[in-house]
Formats: sequence, structure tokens, C-alpha cells
Amino acid sequence: MNDTSAIAVFDSGLGGLTVLRALCQALPNESYVYLGDTARLPYGTKSPETLHKYIQQNINFLLTKNIKAVVVACNSAASVIRQTPIVCPVPLFEVIQPGSETALRLSESKRIGVVGTWATVSQEAYKKALLKLDNAAVVHQQACPLLVSLVEEGWVDDPLTNLIIHRYVSPLLGKGIDTLILGCTHYPVLRGAFQKVAGPNMQLVDSAEAIALQVKEAINKGSLKARPAKSKAIVRLMTTDRGAHFTDLASRLLSPIIPDDVEVVDLL
Amino acid sequence: MNDTSAIAVFDSGLGGLTVLRALCQALPNESYVYLGDTARLPYGTKSPETLHKYIQQNINFLLTKNIKAVVVACNSAASVIRQTPIVCPVPLFEVIQPGSETALRLSESKRIGVVGTWATVSQEAYKKALLKLDNAAVVHQQACPLLVSLVEEGWVDDPLTNLIIHRYVSPLLGKGIDTLILGCTHYPVLRGAFQKVAGPNMQLVDSAEAIALQVKEAINKGSLKARPAKSKAIVRLMTTDRGAHFTDLASRLLSPIIPDDVEVVDLL
Repeated sequence: MNDTSAIAVFDSGLGGLTVLRALCQALPNESYVYLGDTARLPYGTKSPETLHKYIQQNINFLLTKNIKAVVVACNSAASVIRQTPIVCPVPLFEVIQPGSETALRLSESKRIGVVGTWATVSQEAYKKALLKLDNAAVVHQQACPLLVSLVEEGWVDDPLTNLIIHRYVSPLLGKGIDTLILGCTHYPVLRGAFQKVAGPNMQLVDSAEAIALQVKEAINKGSLKARPAKSKAIVRLMTTDRGAHFTDLASRLLSPIIPDDVEVVDLL
Repeated sequence: MNDTSAIAVFDSGLGGLTVLRALCQALPNESYVYLGDTARLPYGTKSPETLHKYIQQNINFLLTKNIKAVVVACNSAASVIRQTPIVCPVPLFEVIQPGSETALRLSESKRIGVVGTWATVSQEAYKKALLKLDNAAVVHQQACPLLVSLVEEGWVDDPLTNLIIHRYVSPLLGKGIDTLILGCTHYPVLRGAFQKVAGPNMQLVDSAEAIALQVKEAINKGSLKARPAKSKAIVRLMTTDRGAHFTDLASRLLSPIIPDDVEVVDLL
């Protein structure tokens, strides 16, 4: 049995496009609907109660778009969902679980660092997931509130960005971690800077790749139905606001994938 | 005639508390209701259409709180209002006008720099206001998207912050400005860093002080009725979300004023 419905992906803004890109590369035959809630971004500084409301509104909206699964491409949102369940009648995938599994597979010392937004770190979502998978793991977290703005500003290959990442990562390096989870969908863009600051031996876990593999596995196993190969796959982008540098940032994050359609929508 | 109603102040978040503080100091006998729309912050990266909707919702909400005036303590919001009028049946004050007047009074060369969010700079609100007041003025603008995050992170007296401000301000210094408008209510917190980077002779215009003086003038002239001196003045803070470091940041921005009441409200 096939299913032509799309896979929905949502994030607070455009960072989740790194997840969409990984999905398009892993499953090029699928159609995708992406929702970036740019009118209410960032999620990383807001309370769990407010985020829960926003997430439910996003999912309710996406359910009207003929979808067969929802991918929560936002670590802050995923942290909230893991704490307080959300109503979603189609399979729901979120970044924390596959990111944690990948980190434990890569780490030798089981000393794992997590960088993320304030919301993700304060909910301890990765810490709880890692300890549930392996209670011998030692997890150290660091909130990095400036990094989302740095990516949106485009200061990616930049000495100032390296200095800021150095300030955030140094305390984690002092704890002897061998693996670092990039626990925010904006951070894969800064992968080079993280590797430079943390050294060539540090294993970096990119949650975008991890979740794409998880969705691919669900399709391979048949728990999610694949799209028939004949018809053309479509990639639709929707945002709740067209703000600063939208097109630049979107094409930088999604490259080399080119969306078929971009529109601004109103959720309320 | 007196009027016991409160003066309403709103901002996208907590930056407008620098305006509330200046108002409390200029007019300590008045009562204030402050609304920080923290659930939807920042405004500085969003489109005029989205901001216009948010601003009208904020004003409609404040009008239910027994108020006699609205102070728009957010440069991004003020930029939008100057472009597209808003419905507000009580006197409305906004930061752009008094900030521009102050800058022209302080500047000798009439070469004026403006730093602000992306929204404020792209709408050219200060540039238009300055040129309308003095068409011989030369105005140079610079968007500084990272600075709000830096203030919220608390990196205020910090060499990294100085480096970032240096990067933003250098192009303006190259244009020979003698006056710099701090066109975002978060920036007065970074006043010391701006002065260090721009040099001791640079005139800095703090829009918080400028708007407080404008409201005081309206009360002195009688266009806004003063509050009777006998009853106790009240300062109420309301936010749409209680997010990261709320209490810390609020008390840092409002110090030495202490609010009588803090509550989280839902606008929708």
C-alpha cells in the first residue's frame, strides 16, 4: 500500500529546513509540507505552556494539509512534547530520541555534551532521554542563546562566532566529553565552527541527519507508507511571517533543495 | 481636572522597561500598566503586516485596563505605526519622534547615525522623521540584530559585546557622524559599550529619556491630565509569557523601580 500524502515538518522558524533538507536527501520520493512559525519565533526563549499552545496550533493547521506524519524539527518544541503529550492522530517524529540514540552509539566514554536553546536545556530533554537509554551516561548541558541570532545574521564562517562558540563550549570540554549533540536545528550550519572549537576528535551529532534516518526506517519497515514512485514529489514551504532575509536564509539552509512553492499563512 | 487612570506602556518584551523606568523617574506620581508581548517577541525581525496586527491587539487589550494614554516603547512597533495608522482613542506617544528631535538638537554637523533592529532600519522610520524635521540632515543607518540577544544573555560589560558593537558601528563612524541614536529600547543597557566604541565625543541619544520628557511635557501643558497626588501610584507589569530569566532581566532593566504587581496574561 502506498500513500501520496505529504510528510509535514515544522519548526519555530527556518532552522528546521536543515531537517527538511536531510529528509529530502534520505527520502527524495516523498512530498513535504514545511511550516515555519516565523511570526512567533523564537521558541527557545519561551515557556513550556506557551510553546505547548503554539505546537498544538501548528499541528492542527498541518492536519488540514493532507499529511501522513508530522516531524517536529525543533528541539525546543520536541522538549515540550516529551514532557506534555500533544494531540496528533498521525505518526509523530521528534528530534530528541534519534539524536540521543546516535550520540550513545558514537560515544566511547559515554560522557556526552548537549548544546541547545534555553528552553531545550532547561527542560533537560536530552539528558532524560540519554539516561533512559543508558543510565551510566554522564550528560553535561549548555544553553547557547546567541547562536540562533548568529546563524540568522549569517555570521557563519566568522572569528567572532568562533569566539562565542568557544565561550559556550569550553565548560563542556572541561568535563571531558567525547560527543557533542547539536541540539538545535540552527546549529548544523555552525558545524565547522563547533568542530574547530571542540577539536577534530569530538563526535558531533547533527539531529537533522538522525531524525531523517528514523523516518526512513519507519518507511522501510512499513510503519509509515511510502509514496508511489510515479507521481512528482512536491516540496511546499509555509511560514507565518515573511521577515528579515527570508529568501536568503531559506535557500542557504535548504540548499541544494529548491522548494516548489512558498507561501505566507495565518494560523489564527 | 485630574485623571487617576494609568499610562500604558508596551513593548515586544522587556526592553521597554527602560522607557517605563524613565517615565517613573520623570513622572513618579503617575500609575503605569506595562505590557511586554514576550510570547511573540522579538518584533525586530518580523514584517510590518504581522507587527501591525500584534500592535493593534496589544492596544485593544490595554484599553480594557483603565488607561489615559499609550506609550509605544518599541522602536520596531513605532516604525510600523508611523507608516500605517493604528486605532487608538487615547493619546499615543511613540519613541521615534522625540528621539529624532533630541538628535537634531544635539548634533552640530547634522550627520546622524541610527542603530536599531532590522524592522526599524528597513522601514527607515528615523531617517524619514529626521529629514522631515531638517531636510539638510544626513542620516546613516545600521541594523544590529544580535544586540537584543546580547542584552537578554546579560553580556553587557563584556569584551565580546564590544567587538560586536565595533563591527556594527564602524561603518557609521566612517561616515563622520557626531550623534548616534540608540534606536531600540534594549540598547540603553549597552550605552557604556557604545560610548567606548564610538569615542567620548559621540552624542548618544537614548530614546527612553526622550519619550519620557515628551510625556512629561504633555502633562505640564495639560494635553494629558495629571494624576491627583494623594492616592498611591501603582506600577503593574504584564507579560504574555514568562520565559527565560524573566525576573532577573526585568529587575535589571527597571532598577531601581520595583513593580507592585507582575502577571502573565493571554491576549487571544
